[in-house]
Amino acid sequence: MTSALPVHPFDGIRSLLRSLPGPDEAAAEKVRRRDATLTKPSGSLGRLEELAEWLAAWQGRHPPRVDNPVVVVFAGNHGVVRNGVSPYPPEVTAQMVANFQSGGAAINQLCRTFGLGLKVFELALESPTRDITLDAALDESDCAAAIAFGMQAIAGTDLLCVGEMGIGNTTIAAAMACALYGGRPEDWVGRGTGVDGAGLERKVDAVRRALDLHLQHIADPFEVLRRLGGREIAAMAGAILAARHQRIPVLIDGYVASAAAAVLHKAEPSSLDHCVAAHCSAEFAHSRLLEKIGKRPLLNLGMRLGEGSGAALAAAILRAAADLHRGMATFPEAGVSSKS
Amino acid sequence: MTSALPVHPFDGIRSLLRSLPGPDEAAAEKVRRRDATLTKPSGSLGRLEELAEWLAAWQGRHPPRVDNPVVVVFAGNHGVVRNGVSPYPPEVTAQMVANFQSGGAAINQLCRTFGLGLKVFELALESPTRDITLDAALDESDCAAAIAFGMQAIAGTDLLCVGEMGIGNTTIAAAMACALYGGRPEDWVGRGTGVDGAGLERKVDAVRRALDLHLQHIADPFEVLRRLGGREIAAMAGAILAARHQRIPVLIDGYVASAAAAVLHKAEPSSLDHCVAAHCSAEFAHSRLLEKIGKRPLLNLGMRLGEGSGAALAAAILRAAADLHRGMATFPEAGVSSKS
Repeated sequence: MTSALPVHPFDGIRSLLRSLPGPDEAAAEKVRRRDATLTKPSGSLGRLEELAEWLAAWQGRHPPRVDNPVVVVFAGNHGVVRNGVSPYPPEVTAQMVANFQSGGAAINQLCRTFGLGLKVFELALESPTRDITLDAALDESDCAAAIAFGMQAIAGTDLLCVGEMGIGNTTIAAAMACALYGGRPEDWVGRGTGVDGAGLERKVDAVRRALDLHLQHIADPFEVLRRLGGREIAAMAGAILAARHQRIPVLIDGYVASAAAAVLHKAEPSSLDHCVAAHCSAEFAHSRLLEKIGKRPLLNLGMRLGEGSGAALAAAILRAAADLHRGMATFPEAGVSSKS
Repeated sequence: MTSALPVHPFDGIRSLLRSLPGPDEAAAEKVRRRDATLTKPSGSLGRLEELAEWLAAWQGRHPPRVDNPVVVVFAGNHGVVRNGVSPYPPEVTAQMVANFQSGGAAINQLCRTFGLGLKVFELALESPTRDITLDAALDESDCAAAIAFGMQAIAGTDLLCVGEMGIGNTTIAAAMACALYGGRPEDWVGRGTGVDGAGLERKVDAVRRALDLHLQHIADPFEVLRRLGGREIAAMAGAILAARHQRIPVLIDGYVASAAAAVLHKAEPSSLDHCVAAHCSAEFAHSRLLEKIGKRPLLNLGMRLGEGSGAALAAAILRAAADLHRGMATFPEAGVSSKS
């Protein structure tokens, strides 16, 4: 006789968060040992040395390699756009997905320049989430399905770049950040794709009304995701978590991707140890959000595009870190005298 | 009848500094106009947009391209090493040149990863410059010859990365910076390849004695170069200046390369307008030196290796900037709705 326990749609992700694999300390130690023999002053490659060690630890192998980096872009639509929070019409989400597919977007050029794979996933663009100022964005089952979708999307890579597209989703990210970390809506709301002053006020107001509506029900970070998030956000959270279980290091892109990561971090702080923040976005509150999830960004180039664009640039740096560690000669190999 | 004017060895470089070509404003304007039509919110690529414009302005063409980027590494030896300013023996300069030639150094891996050309030039390694604590590093004719050598070294590229190798040359760079900008030696001396506390004191002391010796003769920045510099520094200054006249944009690498650039900047502040600072080195005084030459670094990854390594990483970002500008679809081409 089996006792059928009640199954909640989020049980799967909670269980995965309780069984996170740790870093491969032996691989990391091999990086440190080889690094000390390479023909350069110790420490002189700075963060590239740390990144080589981090790659090995989370790929679970030595030497670390970046042979097949992939950018995944999840696209979703948001009911919150009814509040005038974006200067672009919501059709642009689908139009940009078509642009990704025909190779005309920024992320396509970056993937070509750096030899990165690109996979674009649209999540029910014809059915936007519900307006968070009036209702929960998603049902539990919808939210869990989007998480599961993201988990399925990431096979066949040794470095995953996680990005998104979704008109209205910086408002969503701001609402989530405000729910997860407190503070005033205006501490988390920025100009996104470029709203004017009145648009910014509408964004702040939408976030305030959404927070007021959901405040009593968001102690659980997955409820923050379900009530205030969106499908592409849930998919990114799923992708990041699945990558951990598959030993795939992750580059988190900008503000919206960081909000997805923050859900996992709030539920289990060690859940982002296999992630590096690719860059600090020009979006107002991104640096604050990165501090909350304990990440120091690799790049700071004033970008605020999304699409995984910052992560794609950072992937080039990661590949360099792996290639340096693997390819450099040692002092004895090169006949170079070491430090006296 | 002709009157033979006296010719000074530095007359050539001074004349080139008086006839600097300016940016191609028409090419820059074409970048701005096309950028406004590309399928992204205006400004959302941040510094990459500025870089595309800068490339076009200084290449003198639209669209800008990075088809044949080249790293030049100049190597020199320094008499100042007799003062115990480096933990490495001076033979390492020649040994590292051999390592560059056999492909085992950090810069070789970076050039391979990013498809950059690499040219290594050694400058009379068997004849180190004179010890700057006792004498001028170079004769006027030696210094002018090293500048001319650098000017000859750069043809056949559309983006030049300027770097160096030279045991002892962070002491040289510190002495030059102190001579050019004042302050105390300890404001400009850092740990270089990694001297210990006693070594750092010896570096500061060497710079102090060198400054005391030459103080009355360094009002002219080319006298700073001749008395306190070195052949690889002079060659870098020559390369940067020749690049300007050949419409080749330049990425300046770290502390030592910046000291070479500073000579030009002090002589003519507009002489570095075709240069971008690739990164901020972990070498103590680099950020201060970058401020003095008016440059905001692209990357900040805690590197302090030299060899052009920071510039090589930045070249990848520059190539991305050019590829984005050239390759992205416009709003009408992609059928994407623009801002309402």
